[in-house]
Amino acid sequence: MIIDGKKIAADMYEALAKRRALFETPVRLGIVVVGENSVIESFVGMKVKAATRLNVEMMRMSLPETVTTEDVVRATEELAQTTDAIIVQLPLPKHVDIHRALAAIPKEKDVDALNPDIPEEKRLVHAPVALAVVEILKRNNVKIEGARTVVVGAGRLVGKPSAWLLKSLGADVSMFTLQQGSIEDLKDADIIVSGAGNPGFIKPEHVKEGVALVDAGTSELKKKIHGDADPACAEKAAVFTPVPGGVGPVAVAMIFRNLFDLVDTHR
Amino acid sequence: MIIDGKKIAADMYEALAKRRALFETPVRLGIVVVGENSVIESFVGMKVKAATRLNVEMMRMSLPETVTTEDVVRATEELAQTTDAIIVQLPLPKHVDIHRALAAIPKEKDVDALNPDIPEEKRLVHAPVALAVVEILKRNNVKIEGARTVVVGAGRLVGKPSAWLLKSLGADVSMFTLQQGSIEDLKDADIIVSGAGNPGFIKPEHVKEGVALVDAGTSELKKKIHGDADPACAEKAAVFTPVPGGVGPVAVAMIFRNLFDLVDTHR
Repeated sequence: MIIDGKKIAADMYEALAKRRALFETPVRLGIVVVGENSVIESFVGMKVKAATRLNVEMMRMSLPETVTTEDVVRATEELAQTTDAIIVQLPLPKHVDIHRALAAIPKEKDVDALNPDIPEEKRLVHAPVALAVVEILKRNNVKIEGARTVVVGAGRLVGKPSAWLLKSLGADVSMFTLQQGSIEDLKDADIIVSGAGNPGFIKPEHVKEGVALVDAGTSELKKKIHGDADPACAEKAAVFTPVPGGVGPVAVAMIFRNLFDLVDTHR
Repeated sequence: MIIDGKKIAADMYEALAKRRALFETPVRLGIVVVGENSVIESFVGMKVKAATRLNVEMMRMSLPETVTTEDVVRATEELAQTTDAIIVQLPLPKHVDIHRALAAIPKEKDVDALNPDIPEEKRLVHAPVALAVVEILKRNNVKIEGARTVVVGAGRLVGKPSAWLLKSLGADVSMFTLQQGSIEDLKDADIIVSGAGNPGFIKPEHVKEGVALVDAGTSELKKKIHGDADPACAEKAAVFTPVPGGVGPVAVAMIFRNLFDLVDTHR
């Protein structure tokens, strides 16, 4: 079955709007954006759209491409003072120390679960993409406990947090990265979560009949957004998320569920 | 001659970048945006692009469409505390009291010259569009003093401030609005400044040979941006600004000239 991520997100926004109505004062999400290009603008635009829909204020600090790591840290700390939660929009320019920039996000405002100094088990909320992966699996009655699961890629946005979250839910997780595992491992997997950013490299012959294939990889090729999985995989998969329109919209909605969870915890 | 507004703006940015380099600490522009749609995003996007180019931080507060006037006033006052200058992005939703919203902009941070409680002669900087009109006229050696000038429209963004600024520079200004003047008045004008938002209504037969026709009207028709003047007017005009690509880019650059002027005055 091909999953409609927009429909799941719409469902979530309906529930989130009701939660929002219970807060009697403004809820404000901060976002630090360095530099300016169309990819970043489209990421930020999706969040602004969702915020508007949910009656959430967004405070966006746009810093010039040329800023130093110190400038990003300072901006993040400053923005954290007047907001309920903070996003540091990735990617950052290469000259900015990403570890230090993300470490400036206070634990209780880390809506993207990206502060690298906080151990996964100590986080107040989990990574939106990982939560979206689990949400999609659960909504489609995919058994996570004991499932042979391969996570492709070990990036901070998809692979690392998804592997951790699925493991914590009892999945039997192995990783497939350039350093470990092989594409042959995909054949046995009940669940595949992919975040490699390698357009269409997972082919139907790599996966078994009835797999749950959750594709959180995105890459741009000839001005089109592609996932890691060849769309032809949909025919063999019991659950298949397309790119775009699969994990992405659900992950954006999860940012706001995290935001409301953080507000609940700390107000 | 058809004016290339982008070229004038590029010229200004070169000079502005040198001015920016003289400030040793961050320069920060605040912008309050209510609601979310593609027109507003494109206006804001142009400013963010210019800010990035000039090493200016932008702090953007995005409020949901449903906010009250009080929310907008509060956000504007709050943002003013941590920025060098403030823009309240227009248009605002109809239910927001625009006078009260704009009146929340402190005089020393009113980069768009829009606070309606400040008389024109008391402003620290003038409206970016009016300054752009004058810049274009001066760069093309159009004599302003004593020139018979017709300003079309009396809006807060174009007509009102342009009429005031041209008058203060010695032009003989008359207004043409729905309430006063007629299209016949355009025939005698040495200078026409138009900000009606009425696509292509100024035709070649309405203007005299050799006119300076500065078109600051913009309207969207069938997904294309149009000016107030029929492009055919370019043949009769000594100076003609196209839409898009005429006054617009120069006006955006003027926002940043105003910003640096305000920083110069108040730091």
